[in-house]
Amino acid sequence: MNSKTIFLVEDNPSDIDLTKRAFEKNRIGNELIIAEDGQEAIDYLFNTCKESKTLPILILLDLKLPKIDGIEVLRRIRSDCRTKRIPIVVLTSSNEEQDIAACYDNGVNSYIRKPVDFKQFSEAIRALGMYWLILNEPPPKI
Amino acid sequence: MNSKTIFLVEDNPSDIDLTKRAFEKNRIGNELIIAEDGQEAIDYLFNTCKESKTLPILILLDLKLPKIDGIEVLRRIRSDCRTKRIPIVVLTSSNEEQDIAACYDNGVNSYIRKPVDFKQFSEAIRALGMYWLILNEPPPKI
Repeated sequence: MNSKTIFLVEDNPSDIDLTKRAFEKNRIGNELIIAEDGQEAIDYLFNTCKESKTLPILILLDLKLPKIDGIEVLRRIRSDCRTKRIPIVVLTSSNEEQDIAACYDNGVNSYIRKPVDFKQFSEAIRALGMYWLILNEPPPKI
Repeated sequence: MNSKTIFLVEDNPSDIDLTKRAFEKNRIGNELIIAEDGQEAIDYLFNTCKESKTLPILILLDLKLPKIDGIEVLRRIRSDCRTKRIPIVVLTSSNEEQDIAACYDNGVNSYIRKPVDFKQFSEAIRALGMYWLILNEPPPKI
């Protein structure tokens, strides 16, 4: 794993596939690590990464996840001193006000509603990649 | 003041001018309200806005500010339940690791180093505007 890894937490195989295709289409060459439920995400960040001492530079987090939901994953990432600074973008189909509010209240960096259409989804991934991988200054490692 | 106001906290007149020009060039039509020091920013957010009951949808915050510095302004915005969800992008010339770390530790949404060259600065404002005004889902009003 290199130090520019992007961590995608997403349980829907079709959305995982869409994201991979959008990364390829927009030539985002960063390694994409995937967790398919909230528990797997937590295990990866707090066990696997702890051993290898490298953490992703960006987390793309779905909300409706099996085992541990996205809000709780967000809360745990923000509560741990090693992971609290990692930029997190929630990428979800939910536009429920209470989900959006809970994400901001728990320290999400940004909240994006997944466009249903692939062209629009790919464009969102392009803009997201440009913003967080090029324009934004990443947090220093802890 | 409409509900799509952008609040710029910046003490350098030349940087204020650059930002206005970049907004015009990129046809970002949102009203731009400016505070030239940290105290003025706090007064605006917690007094003026309280009266009119409208808050900006995005805050662009410099760090090196007279009276109250940017980190303290960030801290106060995040500590008040009425303002804590507002997206804040630090826009600064500082690339000091301790500034970047302090911003993330105090809940900044994003940290952008101001490009010195106008063309690059304008491009950064364009990408920033596209991201926060179009792609990102804003927090619900409190």
